[in-house]
Amino acid sequence: MSKQRILSGMRPTGPLHLGHLHGALANWKDMQDKYDCFYFIADWHALTTNYEDTSNTAAFRTEMMIDWLSVGLDPAKSTFFVQSEVKEHAELFLILSMITPVPWLERNPTYKDQIVQMENKDLSTFGFLGYPVLQAADIIMYKAHGVPVGIDQVPHVELTREIVRRFNYMYGDVFVEPKAILTETPKLLGSDNRKMSKSYQNAINLADPPDVVSQKVSVMITDPQRMRKKDPGDPDICNVYSFHKIYSPPEMVEQVNKECRAAEIGCVQCKKLMAANLTAQLEPIYEKRVHFEKNRDEVEDIIKTGSDKAREVAKATMEEVRAAVKI
Amino acid sequence: MSKQRILSGMRPTGPLHLGHLHGALANWKDMQDKYDCFYFIADWHALTTNYEDTSNTAAFRTEMMIDWLSVGLDPAKSTFFVQSEVKEHAELFLILSMITPVPWLERNPTYKDQIVQMENKDLSTFGFLGYPVLQAADIIMYKAHGVPVGIDQVPHVELTREIVRRFNYMYGDVFVEPKAILTETPKLLGSDNRKMSKSYQNAINLADPPDVVSQKVSVMITDPQRMRKKDPGDPDICNVYSFHKIYSPPEMVEQVNKECRAAEIGCVQCKKLMAANLTAQLEPIYEKRVHFEKNRDEVEDIIKTGSDKAREVAKATMEEVRAAVKI
Repeated sequence: MSKQRILSGMRPTGPLHLGHLHGALANWKDMQDKYDCFYFIADWHALTTNYEDTSNTAAFRTEMMIDWLSVGLDPAKSTFFVQSEVKEHAELFLILSMITPVPWLERNPTYKDQIVQMENKDLSTFGFLGYPVLQAADIIMYKAHGVPVGIDQVPHVELTREIVRRFNYMYGDVFVEPKAILTETPKLLGSDNRKMSKSYQNAINLADPPDVVSQKVSVMITDPQRMRKKDPGDPDICNVYSFHKIYSPPEMVEQVNKECRAAEIGCVQCKKLMAANLTAQLEPIYEKRVHFEKNRDEVEDIIKTGSDKAREVAKATMEEVRAAVKI
Repeated sequence: MSKQRILSGMRPTGPLHLGHLHGALANWKDMQDKYDCFYFIADWHALTTNYEDTSNTAAFRTEMMIDWLSVGLDPAKSTFFVQSEVKEHAELFLILSMITPVPWLERNPTYKDQIVQMENKDLSTFGFLGYPVLQAADIIMYKAHGVPVGIDQVPHVELTREIVRRFNYMYGDVFVEPKAILTETPKLLGSDNRKMSKSYQNAINLADPPDVVSQKVSVMITDPQRMRKKDPGDPDICNVYSFHKIYSPPEMVEQVNKECRAAEIGCVQCKKLMAANLTAQLEPIYEKRVHFEKNRDEVEDIIKTGSDKAREVAKATMEEVRAAVKI
């Protein structure tokens, strides 16, 4: 039996960080053996929020591919492509837009959320309203069975399923209804205890060299109630402790928990222990990045080969779509 | 100095009739010598209102090209193409959608009008809301200087100009602001005195043979106050008289006007006079149609040659667009 296909993508809007690693990439990597994976760089999607300044999109696209390869995504196993290199996505977006009711888009819970969150950007565009339609086109173009997503993206996959049902009902069974595959993500905040995000400048990036990682750890907020080393601390409200739980061996996690509560270890020392474990785990990622930064042709080749392969699949799907829609 | 370029299109949703001839095609024909004309079959646009039944779209597309050729549109002078054969339109639609504010579309006066007019269809789709964006893509793809339109389409051209200004402001001067070229259209109602329209089944089609034309004229509503031949009539409220003014020589127009008011000519006789003039003028159109119906390969060749030419222009424009948007 052939493997089921999954598809997922990321918008190239800046360097990837630990949030992306644990929220998506580690999962993407694990899925490579079990599924036929298509992962794509969603550069057209990047326009939905970043249309006013596109100067870095091309650079981010290559850097993101390097991040992906560095964490162990493997072109021998999976297909990596750039959305805008497969023009068929635009055609399918146009066709799906004709059968998608506007109220389906307006009731999308992330739509108004994002407009509020990004209040410094004007997101009242037709493209932003329609990005779940483009997302639907991305997914069903490859007849993906599953889409690994975070909890906030589940409504989008549900919308894709609704669009598939409507298309198949009107024009015949062309598409597969994809399932959302929920990714469990550990709690991991930025250095200032807010959500780790490029916009907050509180992120540890996958491209950071070890000394930068250590420096970023050194300024992390710990238990805000603990002013001096002699005060007992509370690991349960300490972000550095959350990092320990991910990156340190169980004995050390237990040890710092105990010593922090007993005021036997200071935050500086505790951070140094964690930083050593974190940098050790990031080291192979960083080394791979150093390799690919020196071999950018190899990276571009991977993108081109994957995009060519994706395009072949997309062309075949669009032949079916045009025959079904009779246009 | 090279000719200015104009672009216009029609949706292949059924046979063309006298309303299309006088509202657009006669003008399109005249423009062929003065301008570099691109005329296109807007099959993707047809989906905005006809997405639920696309079974005839392919047939309508060929029939419409035959109608165009029959009225004297000439592939030696102008470029004829099918929208969906130039996939670049979908890509430009996608990119323009990212910079077009939804309120620009919602305030489009024809948007809510059409939703009310076509109340038997569900037009609350994302594609219907965005069809002026697709129309903008169609026009600016060819850097058209002018767009021949009826008065109701002027707001769409104005919207296209706004989108062009926004694009050029954000990404650099790629596009030309097109001007609306207003087409004056004589008043020409259907056989039941409503607007001539396929949906009302009151139209005289360009494909109708002479006997069908005469038969359709014979059931036209005249002055509704004139019940018998001996009653004097009022040509000013008679649709047959409107047709006389277009199709009959001035002496006859004057004569029927006088004789109608004096109750010297009956409606049956008056219609026969007009029908003879109308069929005489439609005869060369009908003869050409007979030729092209027998030579459908020639028609398909014209569509293919034109679409290939249009695609070359579109490819060049999209190279510029991608460079400007950096994607």
